[in-house]
Amino acid sequence: MEKRKIILDCDPGHDDAIAILLAASHPAIDLMAITVVAGNQTLDKTLPNALHVCQYLDIDVPVYGGMPLPLVRKQVVADMIHGESGLDGPVFEPLQRQAEEENAVNYIIRTLMASDGDITLVPVGPLTNIAVAMRMEPRIIPKIREIVLMGGAYGLGNITPAAEFNLYADPEAADVVFRSGAPIVMMGLDLTNQTVCTPDIIERMERLDNRAAHLFGDIMRFTLKTAHECFGLDAGPMHDVTCVAYLIAPELFTMRDMYTEIDLEHGPSYGRTVCDWSGYMGKTPNSKVGITLDLDKFWDMVEGAISKFA
Amino acid sequence: MEKRKIILDCDPGHDDAIAILLAASHPAIDLMAITVVAGNQTLDKTLPNALHVCQYLDIDVPVYGGMPLPLVRKQVVADMIHGESGLDGPVFEPLQRQAEEENAVNYIIRTLMASDGDITLVPVGPLTNIAVAMRMEPRIIPKIREIVLMGGAYGLGNITPAAEFNLYADPEAADVVFRSGAPIVMMGLDLTNQTVCTPDIIERMERLDNRAAHLFGDIMRFTLKTAHECFGLDAGPMHDVTCVAYLIAPELFTMRDMYTEIDLEHGPSYGRTVCDWSGYMGKTPNSKVGITLDLDKFWDMVEGAISKFA
Amino acid sequence: MEKRKIILDCDPGHDDAIAILLAASHPAIDLMAITVVAGNQTLDKTLPNALHVCQYLDIDVPVYGGMPLPLVRKQVVADMIHGESGLDGPVFEPLQRQAEEENAVNYIIRTLMASDGDITLVPVGPLTNIAVAMRMEPRIIPKIREIVLMGGAYGLGNITPAAEFNLYADPEAADVVFRSGAPIVMMGLDLTNQTVCTPDIIERMERLDNRAAHLFGDIMRFTLKTAHECFGLDAGPMHDVTCVAYLIAPELFTMRDMYTEIDLEHGPSYGRTVCDWSGYMGKTPNSKVGITLDLDKFWDMVEGAISKFA
Amino acid sequence: MEKRKIILDCDPGHDDAIAILLAASHPAIDLMAITVVAGNQTLDKTLPNALHVCQYLDIDVPVYGGMPLPLVRKQVVADMIHGESGLDGPVFEPLQRQAEEENAVNYIIRTLMASDGDITLVPVGPLTNIAVAMRMEPRIIPKIREIVLMGGAYGLGNITPAAEFNLYADPEAADVVFRSGAPIVMMGLDLTNQTVCTPDIIERMERLDNRAAHLFGDIMRFTLKTAHECFGLDAGPMHDVTCVAYLIAPELFTMRDMYTEIDLEHGPSYGRTVCDWSGYMGKTPNSKVGITLDLDKFWDMVEGAISKFA
Repeated sequence: MEKRKIILDCDPGHDDAIAILLAASHPAIDLMAITVVAGNQTLDKTLPNALHVCQYLDIDVPVYGGMPLPLVRKQVVADMIHGESGLDGPVFEPLQRQAEEENAVNYIIRTLMASDGDITLVPVGPLTNIAVAMRMEPRIIPKIREIVLMGGAYGLGNITPAAEFNLYADPEAADVVFRSGAPIVMMGLDLTNQTVCTPDIIERMERLDNRAAHLFGDIMRFTLKTAHECFGLDAGPMHDVTCVAYLIAPELFTMRDMYTEIDLEHGPSYGRTVCDWSGYMGKTPNSKVGITLDLDKFWDMVEGAISKFA
Repeated sequence: MEKRKIILDCDPGHDDAIAILLAASHPAIDLMAITVVAGNQTLDKTLPNALHVCQYLDIDVPVYGGMPLPLVRKQVVADMIHGESGLDGPVFEPLQRQAEEENAVNYIIRTLMASDGDITLVPVGPLTNIAVAMRMEPRIIPKIREIVLMGGAYGLGNITPAAEFNLYADPEAADVVFRSGAPIVMMGLDLTNQTVCTPDIIERMERLDNRAAHLFGDIMRFTLKTAHECFGLDAGPMHDVTCVAYLIAPELFTMRDMYTEIDLEHGPSYGRTVCDWSGYMGKTPNSKVGITLDLDKFWDMVEGAISKFA
Repeated sequence: MEKRKIILDCDPGHDDAIAILLAASHPAIDLMAITVVAGNQTLDKTLPNALHVCQYLDIDVPVYGGMPLPLVRKQVVADMIHGESGLDGPVFEPLQRQAEEENAVNYIIRTLMASDGDITLVPVGPLTNIAVAMRMEPRIIPKIREIVLMGGAYGLGNITPAAEFNLYADPEAADVVFRSGAPIVMMGLDLTNQTVCTPDIIERMERLDNRAAHLFGDIMRFTLKTAHECFGLDAGPMHDVTCVAYLIAPELFTMRDMYTEIDLEHGPSYGRTVCDWSGYMGKTPNSKVGITLDLDKFWDMVEGAISKFA
Repeated sequence: MEKRKIILDCDPGHDDAIAILLAASHPAIDLMAITVVAGNQTLDKTLPNALHVCQYLDIDVPVYGGMPLPLVRKQVVADMIHGESGLDGPVFEPLQRQAEEENAVNYIIRTLMASDGDITLVPVGPLTNIAVAMRMEPRIIPKIREIVLMGGAYGLGNITPAAEFNLYADPEAADVVFRSGAPIVMMGLDLTNQTVCTPDIIERMERLDNRAAHLFGDIMRFTLKTAHECFGLDAGPMHDVTCVAYLIAPELFTMRDMYTEIDLEHGPSYGRTVCDWSGYMGKTPNSKVGITLDLDKFWDMVEGAISKFA
């Protein structure tokens, strides 16, 4: 089978780190680069976090820093979920790895322009890097094979009653991406909240007893703690991981084609993904939205990925 | 048991007619008046429809016509659901009944001002009559015992992806009501869509074989038809009836206190009830929102009401 | 000459009082009634103020209280300009006059419906009374001869950089009126700010030495004071008076037909009259907007009106 | 006297071409580079137009192409004013000059980061290049000496009743720039519309009879034509030139410090510069806004610049 070429655009972030782990280790994925954006924390934290994960797991892919601020709005971060560092929990050795010189936006443009249309973008943070690339060089849009993103919700949000954090952190960027015409797969909270990681799952993964298993444990125990503190949950969701899982095994997911519009009004629904489940707006669907997944097979996939590490 | 004094504010409308039927016949309810508003159709149709239902079922309560237009926005009606007349399906005798001279808004103000705080408003259409009364005479607000309304949704809408019809038809009026400080019970689509009336239920009611049973059958067969045409459903919801049922037997319902804000921005979420399920906004709840109901007992209640008629 | 029948809808208010004075005394005007709305102050202040002016000047017209709150938005008042009472400055005898029982909204509807289309509405405060009347009974709209209103600006505002007070105090009501199709004459700040009353003018009027002259002096000295404090001006504008003056002598005014839209977005231009001077929007003009006036003749008219009183 | 280092960010465009002419030839200005943005026309037209002007006038500065699309909104261009090519009127020789490889955004970031805080940005088109640079590398902001921009209006707009073209073409970018904290000089329509170029002025400049004089004539005759067709004017404004003129001789201008906010609501005031002339918002001024200029001396300056060319 041909590997799926992806650029993973992330803001580690706990679930981001597991997404990196899965993307870097699964044989179905060719992880070309990791591009980093501000989101769960500021870029001066998310960029080192990405490098730390790569260094710790000995993942050899280039890492690019991108946009430190959203397109227009004032910055918000998710420190209540991801801690002061953006990846509280694991303790890392001093950082040796370095990010590339080139800005992630320029890297994305250059790489897509030189490609044959076989690269998939996997943004699991705010969509700022992707949006700026699209506006700076719109000719990349037909070069994108697919955008498989984590963000949004057709049900309730997780940062406001209406909005999910990634899209709320940069609604204008999301609007650019959703109106771009590129094929979009959206893993929103409706799906990702089903991937709750319980203490049982953590123990199962830790039994693999390698570096990846320990990282998984450290990360998910912290996620569990903040999921409990912030949302009163007894398990922590693995939002970002679903995008990589979908590229590996789309048959595990049920999806629905919908027209999705980003609410850019500055009221209580700012940043909401208004998903037209019933087709009231009479518009051609621009997104394939995640509805359910086969959770048992999802955990098997995560376990398989962890077991690949030394 | 003391009867619950209510003013039923409606826009018949199919489910409105069943709500009238239940409110007029159940011993726990003292139906003081029916006030009518534009909504499912224009007022020159909803007002005669209310009178027709009263005449046909020999319900002896005064009927008042109110606001023919929403507070600010351009009028929208739901003719795709309720037909050209607003109550397509049943065929009525020529109308003898007459509406009262006084405007519903003035009636509501006058009646509340003269009351001891024991009157409950039950608006099951757009909230225009209630909102104008509140703005014209704010001293009625502390006189209102409770507002038990049908409208909104914390999930998906039924006229746009974001909004339910009653609130979408007059979002500014809804905003006035939700910000008023009066105690609000909100029966939104999340709950009311559970009250789907299947052919089985229709046959069960028709077996009672009285005027009310025939009206129920005529109305719900038409609802079934448009529910199928518009939403692809095999059963028709009884939205408005839930408000009256709640007043009769609140123990049949699970409810959740939430702060609810009406989205007044002119974007894709215009008219949405933004319900803060998780308390992200940190505001004191202003509404008790319907979550689930005991459907078997709900049908028993409807059957009991129909059986009261000759 | 036939007298022009008007209903003066006001929120006294200093310039409102002078508008009453002019409308009540000029032979070209048939002042049918004064309807009162909240605006410069709350209705419990503006209504007595209107009665005080009528009592003091022995003006024998019915006075109706109307809407105490704007249609939708939270109430704002202009106490920085009009003082705690809404008409600070003059000292009145205890009030004997009483307002009519009927609500101003109901009066306007009843009177217009019974009319031959010869009544002009002159709203010089927020447009709440007019808007509610129009929504409660849209058949009054073709009965309105003309609406000559004070409000708005195509230039700078006086309560925000974008908005004039009367329209800012109830933008949704203004939207209803401007979209109604009734013929509208708009006297905005661009024109009304030209009617600045200097100490010279005050002295000229006071020389007439009757009750009206004293009232004018007391009112305009207070206006001068707050105009100085709030805007650093050496003279006080007579905003509301221009509407009555226009009905008496339209030839004193240059006007321009424009399409005017009310900005209802909740941003920095909320309540602005967006006047399409150049026709960029390609819409049929819905308003005749005041540009300049002959100020000398305006003062002559005011002087003539004052001289009519004992 | 030390020369003022500037980067001229433009979208030629007729008045842009004259701004280039003035900036390149005046001894008080050190024109470091010309950066180009989409605006009056699409970037594939404005970029060659800038190169053509440089080639024709033998101006030896690097030219960088930047953003081909606004930050978020759908693109609008001003072809009714600037013609199909964006610089209709003059006829140029085939283009030999080439733009630099580097994107204008990257050039601006790189140059400012390497500077000592002595560079002034002079954006006379939509603010897209500047805004993207600021969001991609916020550390440039304290490096900017001043931003002297053409755009906005505290009075009436020229593309909608509320908005001026440059800011309307990318309101979100303007918002980023106005909220950035960099010192801003705003030459809005209130000032720039005073710089109307009449046939007399054109003839005066043409008498200089050099390449620059001929270019001026060709450009301004076309501007005159569209100013007449679109706005019914008998003279054409030199909007963009005022920014360069201000840097050369600020004493020719009267200015006023104001807090300016960009209206980002999607209503009739979208893209308006809401300038708080009177300080109603109580905010610290973030812009020095042009009010009047000494027009005679302005034309002398333009004449002097033209006379410098061969």
